[in-house]
Amino acid sequence: MHRTAVKKAVLEGVLDANDALAQANREKFDRAGTYVINLMSSPGAGKTALLERTLERLRGRLRLRVLEGDVQTTLDADRLARFHVPLVQVNTDAGFGGECHLDANMVRSGLGELPLADIDILVIENVGNLVCPAEFKVGEDARVMVYSITEGEEKPLKYPLMFRSADLVLVNKVDLLKHLEFDLEQFLGNLEAINRGVEYMLTSARTGRGVEKWCSWLERRKSA
Amino acid sequence: MHRTAVKKAVLEGVLDANDALAQANREKFDRAGTYVINLMSSPGAGKTALLERTLERLRGRLRLRVLEGDVQTTLDADRLARFHVPLVQVNTDAGFGGECHLDANMVRSGLGELPLADIDILVIENVGNLVCPAEFKVGEDARVMVYSITEGEEKPLKYPLMFRSADLVLVNKVDLLKHLEFDLEQFLGNLEAINRGVEYMLTSARTGRGVEKWCSWLERRKSA
Repeated sequence: MHRTAVKKAVLEGVLDANDALAQANREKFDRAGTYVINLMSSPGAGKTALLERTLERLRGRLRLRVLEGDVQTTLDADRLARFHVPLVQVNTDAGFGGECHLDANMVRSGLGELPLADIDILVIENVGNLVCPAEFKVGEDARVMVYSITEGEEKPLKYPLMFRSADLVLVNKVDLLKHLEFDLEQFLGNLEAINRGVEYMLTSARTGRGVEKWCSWLERRKSA
Repeated sequence: MHRTAVKKAVLEGVLDANDALAQANREKFDRAGTYVINLMSSPGAGKTALLERTLERLRGRLRLRVLEGDVQTTLDADRLARFHVPLVQVNTDAGFGGECHLDANMVRSGLGELPLADIDILVIENVGNLVCPAEFKVGEDARVMVYSITEGEEKPLKYPLMFRSADLVLVNKVDLLKHLEFDLEQFLGNLEAINRGVEYMLTSARTGRGVEKWCSWLERRKSA
């Protein structure tokens, strides 16, 4: 299939170019002493809600800042604006239907507005998507994945790339466990099958469960 | 940005090629008298669960068949196999991290195994993703979107392309309404803002709410 071969070669070229830019971002972060997290999930898994709880708790303890990626709107940035921390919004809709992920160049374009030297941890909130964001490095130190238990037990097997590349999985919306037929043990078994030994935490942005543990994880990254 | 311009031109070429293949698929479907639905959603919104309920109800009433798209695994096809209807699985993981959507060529590659002349309605279950599947026509007559209320009210504004291109939205998991802070009126207002007058139904694959209405909608398509 010639068309597919051409497409694949182009995509590989895009990824090579992206890796080079990601490396440049990474060097910039390292020079500034900023630890960078690429926060990824499906749409609606609770990334922004967890960031709201996180910013509430860490205010005054850690200089945490956010770079928001969305196809359109500034809705997530607006939600976080009340915490009065510097944040930058990058919209990805320049392409055709809108890029489905952040890439290293988009992140770079947003960095000019962020005072890296004054930032302990930068969280890059990626576009909600369980496939493409995992294919594009942006210069991060760690990948944190938010997974909502409403998505079912089998997703690590069906969408392995993101689960495999995660350094930490926040298993979110656990307040709904009693209302769902979700089998937590089965999910954790599938996760372990795809990413042996990966760290995970049970969280609920709504009740606050696990948020302190997650904030401690972040604080340890600062001192690392 | 030269790199972006090149990338955009390539993507537009890919989309043009896809449109031509989608048109060829469409002509094949029309000749066979098969009505084709492109079923799209985020991961875990309930596409397969709704198809299970649908196949249960329509058995003997309508010759409904399924083409399953997944990045990896045959888990969804395995779930539907118990209904003993012909189904085809297309995996999209040939690319780098796995394609995040079905395209017209992938659908074409799966059609050889389906006896179109014996099929009233073919449902193409797309990869779980709220962005990319909407960019690729596959030759469908209608686009049906499954939206889980666990994903929040604002997604039509943040991911407009798919919502805008939907002919019908199945607002799913409404059995969880009482356990969530989901504002249904606000969601429907956002949906209307993006796709004026779009038809929608409230559904629950778990309780069966709305499934009969959805099945009637399918039966009307057959006679259309």
